[in-house]
Amino acid sequence: MDRHTTAAAADDTPGAGGPRSAATRRAILDAARATFAARGYEQTTIRAVAAQAGIDPSMVMRYFGSKAGLFAAAATVDLPVPDLTSVPVRRRGEALVRHVVQRWEGSLGDDSLVLLLRTAVTNDEVAAQLQNQMNQLVIEPVAALGDPHASRRGALIGTQLLGLALCRYILRLEPLSSLPVETLVGSIAPTIQRYLTERVED
Amino acid sequence: MDRHTTAAAADDTPGAGGPRSAATRRAILDAARATFAARGYEQTTIRAVAAQAGIDPSMVMRYFGSKAGLFAAAATVDLPVPDLTSVPVRRRGEALVRHVVQRWEGSLGDDSLVLLLRTAVTNDEVAAQLQNQMNQLVIEPVAALGDPHASRRGALIGTQLLGLALCRYILRLEPLSSLPVETLVGSIAPTIQRYLTERVED
Repeated sequence: MDRHTTAAAADDTPGAGGPRSAATRRAILDAARATFAARGYEQTTIRAVAAQAGIDPSMVMRYFGSKAGLFAAAATVDLPVPDLTSVPVRRRGEALVRHVVQRWEGSLGDDSLVLLLRTAVTNDEVAAQLQNQMNQLVIEPVAALGDPHASRRGALIGTQLLGLALCRYILRLEPLSSLPVETLVGSIAPTIQRYLTERVED
Repeated sequence: MDRHTTAAAADDTPGAGGPRSAATRRAILDAARATFAARGYEQTTIRAVAAQAGIDPSMVMRYFGSKAGLFAAAATVDLPVPDLTSVPVRRRGEALVRHVVQRWEGSLGDDSLVLLLRTAVTNDEVAAQLQNQMNQLVIEPVAALGDPHASRRGALIGTQLLGLALCRYILRLEPLSSLPVETLVGSIAPTIQRYLTERVED
């Protein structure tokens, strides 16, 4: 299942069709990710992104409408949503942890979840986007299992997974940052498993 | 406390002690917490804090040395360190969660842990301070139980507790922010309990 949400809606803009516009769009997004990551959301300007992409600022506005629109597109997590229905019940916690940790252990220079998280703590609009991401990545897969308490389970899972992301990839707290991935997965999987399966009083 | 006695305050010297210098110090810290919380670390200036406190900027420098020094003093968490040795083993996870959540559920406008966390995600010096706080609040109490794996257990506990703080008090993600405290404690305590007691392979 693949929900890449950076759909090229801007390609419908008059005069902006074809492969050239897709390349421009990609160049703007690459420049935006680099600039947002280096300067943070508040200090990033459309002008700086345009300069980095080697195009005119008006083009950035034409494609993305605003800085918030540009950030939304740049920070959209392209993590495929896990399909828990195909995983045996008792291994779902581990599957979910492994899914996100493997993504995060990759190259983090342009990691969009880290960018999103770092910005969300100081900007309410961006925090709302992170809420959407959590819904897509965690709450919807749990809801897809037919669980009536999906949203509460997903919220608890979110505290553990975002806390892990925060401590290991952003704050780089020790000894957490040095723990082997398998140790982390082994310790955190039972937490997620319990949030997925614990009895909930109505 | 009168915060506009600039001339009188200028007579204070750090280390001279006495009620007047203590009052000045407190006035600066109150102003610093309010200003850091409102503007964030990067946008806060010594000058702005001094103006808020009604004293000369040179006094702030005299008392705290630098903006980083001022932040360190302002954001120091005055949460008492939990004494886990007096808690029965099987209730320690719950005790630790309850201890921090009860603190966080208080008035958050000037909450120093929230301020510290928000700043730490974008500033390495402040992240190092948060590491110290985590050591004091979580790793040392666990180490005081004589556990040779205290630092690893504390690190895992930190991911869950900071993730909770992040999602509930900073990002205010739903439905997490609306869950009753007892529900939260009931769900998260077993996680902390397991991190405190799970078998660790050497």
